[in-house]
Order: sequence, then structure tokens, then C-alpha cells
Amino acid sequence: MESTQPMPAPTPPAPTLEDIVTAADRIRPHVHRTPVLTCSALDELSGASLLFKCECFQKVGAFKIRGATNAVLSLPEDRARRGVATHSSGNHAAALALAARNRGICAYVVMPSNAPQVKVDAVAGYGAQITRCAPTLDAREEALLAVVAETGAEVIHPYNDPAVVAGAGTAALELLTDHPDLDAVLAPVGGGGLMSGTAIAARGLSQRIRIIGAEPAMADDAFRSLREGRILPSVDPQTICDGLLTSLGPLSFAVLSRLLERIVTVGEASVVRAMRLVWERMKVVIEPSAAVPLAALLEGGLDLRGMRVGIILSGGNVSLDRLPW
Amino acid sequence: MESTQPMPAPTPPAPTLEDIVTAADRIRPHVHRTPVLTCSALDELSGASLLFKCECFQKVGAFKIRGATNAVLSLPEDRARRGVATHSSGNHAAALALAARNRGICAYVVMPSNAPQVKVDAVAGYGAQITRCAPTLDAREEALLAVVAETGAEVIHPYNDPAVVAGAGTAALELLTDHPDLDAVLAPVGGGGLMSGTAIAARGLSQRIRIIGAEPAMADDAFRSLREGRILPSVDPQTICDGLLTSLGPLSFAVLSRLLERIVTVGEASVVRAMRLVWERMKVVIEPSAAVPLAALLEGGLDLRGMRVGIILSGGNVSLDRLPW
Repeated sequence: MESTQPMPAPTPPAPTLEDIVTAADRIRPHVHRTPVLTCSALDELSGASLLFKCECFQKVGAFKIRGATNAVLSLPEDRARRGVATHSSGNHAAALALAARNRGICAYVVMPSNAPQVKVDAVAGYGAQITRCAPTLDAREEALLAVVAETGAEVIHPYNDPAVVAGAGTAALELLTDHPDLDAVLAPVGGGGLMSGTAIAARGLSQRIRIIGAEPAMADDAFRSLREGRILPSVDPQTICDGLLTSLGPLSFAVLSRLLERIVTVGEASVVRAMRLVWERMKVVIEPSAAVPLAALLEGGLDLRGMRVGIILSGGNVSLDRLPW
Repeated sequence: MESTQPMPAPTPPAPTLEDIVTAADRIRPHVHRTPVLTCSALDELSGASLLFKCECFQKVGAFKIRGATNAVLSLPEDRARRGVATHSSGNHAAALALAARNRGICAYVVMPSNAPQVKVDAVAGYGAQITRCAPTLDAREEALLAVVAETGAEVIHPYNDPAVVAGAGTAALELLTDHPDLDAVLAPVGGGGLMSGTAIAARGLSQRIRIIGAEPAMADDAFRSLREGRILPSVDPQTICDGLLTSLGPLSFAVLSRLLERIVTVGEASVVRAMRLVWERMKVVIEPSAAVPLAALLEGGLDLRGMRVGIILSGGNVSLDRLPW
């Protein structure tokens, strides 16, 4: 990765199960081993036996710390010492900031002017240096380029990076280590990093497990991309799933094309109902993006009755003052 | 216990650590072993190292299923077969209903006319037979007496029952089995069943552990009772902690007088802030009652800096449409 080329999009080599196992060892001191919860009420509603991997309880409130930590710790000393950089308005920014602090290096984060103040505060709280910019992709990339030119920091892409994908896959690795008899595993699809890591871990550990993605119908670029056989960008997606707005990258497109059985799309109202069910029945705070796989099971036509199904609850960062019900 | 004397209040013998261990074995197939979560943000705020035992993830959303299950399973066959009965507007009703269903016996629950419909639905959903009555203690006890006279069901008191207290103590038993090095353990005090079981387990496992209760200042009957050396009833308490409205019983008064270091009282606003912090930082849905110990640490003058502190998050049953912030 050239440090003068922020957010590059070549196709990096996909990580392997061994890379994910190595990542798990590497990041262990810095992340939670999150619990797996079950809920008989949701089992009854779905007809399946559901095992929820609760990444909402993860540090920074989302699985993102796994990939960011693995990427930061994988950098050789000479590249790490000038710091890491990214542009992000969401969980990746906070994750990279904390991962950098844990290694004792600087994080430079470009955040758009419309990023929620609570997220800006979180990133600042982890000690990152924040640069604000206009809320367009062009402005974000331009600002990041300037930061990198000035600092020499290493750009860490939120998902088009094998180390980030390997880190993300450690959640499924833990889930399948605890429950090796799963018949299927489900995760939400945004940029595809979590789904890619999940798929590589799952297929590496089980030849028979079904690997299924879930995506909001209002941001169904991954569904369309896999159908068309090429990356179709996500254009102005209107969904409450603010973690799933991005398009697939070359890495996730390649992995998902190879390993994913299908992507199920679900409507916004189904997502809100599934999210509320998890809060009410499981007492777990999840963000809308994390509810998409359950919505696929309950209202998206995905029938896995009688099966043992692992679901990655990807995160829980949501404003308690603006709940969608 | 005479079945014609509902909700009796003699002083039953306190359970021992051995009773709690036996209870844990007995109830294991019917309850979750709930996870223990940590949160660095709350550690920073409190100055202590906090370990949260998440009974909000327990079946029926509260620790109550532990005591109810132990009581129901402890009944000899000849007393169990006519069913069990109680009056309750809260978590004990749902817990007893589920515990009875798990044993295949009837549960008769007297619920006041002002009980929230969602709680009535939950109890009915577990197959209990519900009798509605006027919302006074007299009406509740009278209605229960009538139910017992008609059915011969065994009354299961929500906390003045050694089997219920022993069951409640299994949460602390699990917590201290996982983390034997705790310096202190905290729980909320309502009727005192959870606090009694917690105290017996903790003192049985550690001679040095500090055992501290927390109570809303607006329902500080246990604080006053321990200070005065006699049970003072809770009179028309005005607190959002709807699980902590009841007075101590003879059993919990005796246990807490012997084992509790102190009870810390906290104001309503502190409870709401602590509750919101747990939702926001831990992504865990707790009810106000469960937030009281954390409130005691953060704003109640309870200083346990530098210590490892176990906190029982007692339950998570709260209406998502009426949040207190």
C-alpha cells in the first residue's frame, strides 16, 4: 500500500483461515472475547436455534476493533511509527483510534462535517488527531491525502485490507470454536469486510456450513454486485443501517463471490422490528445494521427452520435519543 | 408452610452456601449461565475494576427465575402436583409461571388490575392462570387466599423463602466461581432476596469480600430497617425502581443484619444516569432497579477505587416506549 495513495482499491490477496487464527492470537490482549447468547423467544419466532455472537459488547461497541487492531499490530515498526490514517464517520474511525493508542502510535482521522458529534467525541477521546472536511467522498479522500502527505502515516482501509478482514473473521472463529456444530452463519453486508472474514473462517472450519449474507433492500449493492458478477457501487443509499452504506471493495467482492451462498435483502420496517425484538427479548442494544440478519430470518424469506444458526450482532452504537420506533 | 396461609411471614431458616450449590445443580437445565461483562469506560468513571453479572440476559429477563425454579423443583411431588401460586405484578410472576411450566404443573398468579399489560401477557404466555384483583395488598392477599382454598396450590413467596433465596444466590455463586478474587460484591435491595442470596454465597466463598447493598433513597426501608434493628415497612415508595418497592421479610432482615457491611442509598436522577450509562457504554438493556449499585458507586459516595467489584445487574425488563431520559 503506497502511503501517498489513500484508500487504494487494488485486489489484495484474501486472508486464509490461518491468517485469522494468527490475527486472533495477535489481537487477544486488546479485544473482548464476546459472549454468545441464545433466546428462546427468538428461536420460537424463527423456528431455528439461534446463537448470537455479541460484538455489540466489543470494545468501541462493534467488531471493527478486531480488524483495526490486527492491521495496526501487523505493521512493521518502520511503517507504524509515523502513525495510521483513515477517513471515516463511523465505527472504523473509533476502532483505528483505539488500536493506534494501544500500540502507542498516532491516528489521524478525517471526519466529514456532518459526522455525529458523539462519534467525533469518541474518536477524540481515544486521542486521535481529527481533520474535519466537507461531507463528500472527494473531500474526504483529498483531506486524507493531505494528512498522509504531511505525516507519512499509513492508510488503513476499513475493509479492503487483508489484515482488517482477517481481524473481522476472528469473531466467527470464536463463535465456531465455541459452537462447531452450526449449520449456518449469517452476517450483515456493508463493505463486505465482516462478511468476508466470517465466510473465510466458517468455510475453513466447516465444509458443510451455509454462509449467508443479509443486506438492506435500500442499500442492496452487494446483492446486485454478486448477481451481475461485478462491483456495482452503492449510490446514495437511504437506509437506517448507517454501517452498511458502503460498496464492496475488490477484496470483499472476490471473497464473497467465491464463498457466499446468497445475500438476502430486507426492508427498513423489518430491520426496525428485528432490532426492537433484540432489545426487548434479549436485552441487548444493537444498532440497525446488526439487526439485518435476524430480519432476514424473520421477514426476509430466509427459512432455516430446524437448523443451528450463528448470527454476528455486529455492533451497538446507536443514539438513545433517536430510536427508530 | 400452610397452604391456607398465603404469603406467611415467619422467619424461615436461612439457606447456607451448600444450599446454594445444591440449588445451582438443581436449576442448571432451566436457566442461563449468564455472562460477566466488563467496561473500561465505567472502570474509568468509578476508579474500580467492575465485573457485571448480567442477569438481564437471564430467562424472563431477571434473576427471579433462579429462585422460582429452585422453589418449584424443591417441592415434593405430593405438594407440587396441585400447582403453585403467588401474587405479583412483576418479574416473580413471570418467573414462577415459567418455572411451573418447566415442571409441568399449574401456576396461579394473582395480578393487580394496574399491572402493565405487557407483564400480564408475559405471565399468560407462560401458561399461568391469572386472577385479577384490586391494586391493594389486602385485595391481593385475599384473592390469593381464595385461589389457594380452591386449588390447594403451594404459595411461593417472592423472597421470604429459603429455596427462593438459595436460588437467587446462584448468580453470585457463578460470579465468584468465575472471579474468585473479587474485593467486593454489590446488589440492589428490594425485598432482600437477591441481596441475601448474594451475601450468603459471597461470605461462604470469601471471608474478606465486602458485601454492600444499594437502595433508592426514595425506597430506603431496608437502610432504615438495618439502622433501627427492626423491619420498617416500605410505605408508598415513589421510585422508578419498580423492582425495589417491597419491604424486607423476616428471612432477608435476619441475613442482611448478619452479613451486610452497609446499604448505600441513591437519588432517582443518579439511577437514571447510571442506567443510561450501562445502555450506552455496555450496550446492555437494564431496568432502573439494576442500575442502583452502579449509581451508588458513581454518585452515592461509595468509594471502592482500586478494587475488583462484582455487580449483579438484576434485570432488564423495561418498556422501550417509556424510557426515563
